[in-house]
Amino acid sequence: MVIELSLLRQIANVAAEQTLPRFRTMSLIDNKFSTGFDPVTEADREAEKAIRKLINTRLPDHGILGEEFGGENLDHSHVWVIDPIDGTRAFISGIPVWGTLAGLTIEGDAVAGLMSQPFTKELFMSDGEASWYEGPGGNRRLATRKTKELADATLFTTTPAMFKDNKRNAYDRVEQHVRLARYGTDCYAYAMLAAGFVDLVIETGLHPYDIVALVPIIEKAGGVVSTWDGGPAEKAGDIVAAATPELHAKALELLNH
Amino acid sequence: MVIELSLLRQIANVAAEQTLPRFRTMSLIDNKFSTGFDPVTEADREAEKAIRKLINTRLPDHGILGEEFGGENLDHSHVWVIDPIDGTRAFISGIPVWGTLAGLTIEGDAVAGLMSQPFTKELFMSDGEASWYEGPGGNRRLATRKTKELADATLFTTTPAMFKDNKRNAYDRVEQHVRLARYGTDCYAYAMLAAGFVDLVIETGLHPYDIVALVPIIEKAGGVVSTWDGGPAEKAGDIVAAATPELHAKALELLNH
Repeated sequence: MVIELSLLRQIANVAAEQTLPRFRTMSLIDNKFSTGFDPVTEADREAEKAIRKLINTRLPDHGILGEEFGGENLDHSHVWVIDPIDGTRAFISGIPVWGTLAGLTIEGDAVAGLMSQPFTKELFMSDGEASWYEGPGGNRRLATRKTKELADATLFTTTPAMFKDNKRNAYDRVEQHVRLARYGTDCYAYAMLAAGFVDLVIETGLHPYDIVALVPIIEKAGGVVSTWDGGPAEKAGDIVAAATPELHAKALELLNH
Repeated sequence: MVIELSLLRQIANVAAEQTLPRFRTMSLIDNKFSTGFDPVTEADREAEKAIRKLINTRLPDHGILGEEFGGENLDHSHVWVIDPIDGTRAFISGIPVWGTLAGLTIEGDAVAGLMSQPFTKELFMSDGEASWYEGPGGNRRLATRKTKELADATLFTTTPAMFKDNKRNAYDRVEQHVRLARYGTDCYAYAMLAAGFVDLVIETGLHPYDIVALVPIIEKAGGVVSTWDGGPAEKAGDIVAAATPELHAKALELLNH
């Protein structure tokens, strides 16, 4: 174990105190863009501040790279990579598939992390040895499904419109081979992959803070996640996550056809 | 008021007793198709049976049209239209944006109804006079946002792949004019429209049981819902729901361009 689950829970809690009261406040005004009222940006910034404060207090020798406030102590061996609200469009639209992401890297490798959805009170996390779910339906260890064939697989992506030109062709090749494709989930799709309900997630244009926290949650649940060329997922960019090594290999082959 | 809120809550509860224990059980086996294990169909059928039993007991002179078991007493003035699980693909994938739908029609007009999401413990309903939310964040009356321009609107559809040929062109014309388009929500998008977080929902190929329950929830929250040709939404098929009459008119114009 590289990090206590209790600390991961604390990170989720201090973020939720900032995000949840601002979720579903968008209907209070007619058009946020004309008034300057922007609860998403506010929630994003305040949640990252709260997480940074907690890490600085509890783990003062750890560095931090956050979506909102950049890097500090990035030359340290242990660095946290944070996205206070992954899925801002879902957040804006009232749909509870956004999440708070915080992942711990050691010398650049993602080793532990959490994804928290505070409205549904779901927490997906890895302490570096296993992956865990806490929330409605009962706490349990996470394990991916044993799907090995594309023809049996459920595939998720946030939107096919994110793929341009050759990347769209590559994505479409995989989509044509799966049993079921579905859109619109951001980080929630990776959590469902770790939990055994989704078999493949394919995306592009990701930043490290979009994926680092999810890597250990997926890997310690039995899944595989990498860039489309098979490189480490911590590099971000084009990402493919799969429930099993066999399914991952088949998706890579089609993506790089 | 045409129906007591307490009866709508009871319908939600008897359905939830059948759906929720079967939600997120798909990872228990490797491939449901090879084993015959099919928790979605089971949940669908058992929830509809439970709703029918409740309506038959409490409202014996009301007819029922359900997705799973067809019609009974359809010549009566009051008929319930039921989809025990709208969004079976979301249900299969562990994503809590599916819902139980039950709507009451009088002489064919949708006058009251409910959408229940039992995992998030959210209930959206109309008693025929107003629309109400009960769930996390606090109970309140539902009201749509006052968005009048496509350029300010958030648009949802389950997937753009549902639109073929001319219908795809029509949908794309609207999508090109909105501020934000997002996919993958089934009935949940209509609930968010009634709640003021989403401004437009456009879909095609709907059955009456997919939309009847949502019509009063949208209308009594201030929204407008119709077929693409401006006919009554109870006919189903091609559906457009909007937060305001002005926005609805602008969407219709582009769809029928």
